[in-house]
Amino acid sequence: MDLKNYIREVKDFPKEGIDFKDITTLIKDNYAFKFTIDRFVEYLKDKEVDIIVGPEARGFLMGAPVSYGLGVGFVPVRKPGKLPYETESVSYGLEYGEDTIEIHKDSIKKGQKVAILDDLLATGGTVEATAKLIEKLGGEVVSINFLIELEFLNGRERLKNYDVNSLIKY
Amino acid sequence: MDLKNYIREVKDFPKEGIDFKDITTLIKDNYAFKFTIDRFVEYLKDKEVDIIVGPEARGFLMGAPVSYGLGVGFVPVRKPGKLPYETESVSYGLEYGEDTIEIHKDSIKKGQKVAILDDLLATGGTVEATAKLIEKLGGEVVSINFLIELEFLNGRERLKNYDVNSLIKY
Repeated sequence: MDLKNYIREVKDFPKEGIDFKDITTLIKDNYAFKFTIDRFVEYLKDKEVDIIVGPEARGFLMGAPVSYGLGVGFVPVRKPGKLPYETESVSYGLEYGEDTIEIHKDSIKKGQKVAILDDLLATGGTVEATAKLIEKLGGEVVSINFLIELEFLNGRERLKNYDVNSLIKY
Repeated sequence: MDLKNYIREVKDFPKEGIDFKDITTLIKDNYAFKFTIDRFVEYLKDKEVDIIVGPEARGFLMGAPVSYGLGVGFVPVRKPGKLPYETESVSYGLEYGEDTIEIHKDSIKKGQKVAILDDLLATGGTVEATAKLIEKLGGEVVSINFLIELEFLNGRERLKNYDVNSLIKY
């Protein structure tokens, strides 16, 4: 099954010049969605993963079913003010300005092996910040997994200290 | 397994007087998360569900793994401007002001049987709007499922034309 056939490219979204990769056409398809999650589960099943972390909102779409498939828990990383309990936060640079993400302080125990799931590897900023949050809490990032990797943006270089796995490459 | 033991109550979040039900303590737990999703899958497996719909972002945490468990696709409902392709939208009243949610126009085919998944039934406004979106596209809402139901807010009355299932009641 060539998963790329299930990705819809939307021109000029969210702004002119960007060729957006729409994953909703993949996840609404019974077979493509199951095939996708099965691939992640298979890739991760021998890595002794204790818990999955995914950034909102599309990271939830990948991470929560992979957690279920592996039989482990899921931890959300969210934008500021969304998580109700005590949080740890990291800020990171964007093309213009910066962004902050948060995780619950008690969500990961020291020494736990963590896999990160997200929909898309572009420049890798969000996921690198997610890895930092996990490490601040004492977790070990054993794998970072994406549905799509935009190879021309070279995000893999930024994540070179981690195991990086992606299913569809552009 | 009493799932209520895995819910954390956070006083005065997001504002004073609200006793927030934090589901992150449940979904990070291997057994409680799997038990939860298994219950939904079991409840839905004889309803001939073609596709699952969930509103962002916590609806993704319930809906995506249930989709995977049932072997059907998942369709996200999002806030305005987040979905890249042509959308249908519905606005609905809040305590103060109103809110709008969107769905991709081509996400559901006429006659498809749809189950809605979300984390929490409060007054039922978001989920009622989600059901309207599905019906606008010609889908049939066969079941609405929540992790938590706040019975004292009587949201079930508002959804009385639908099958409503919840796992934890307050």
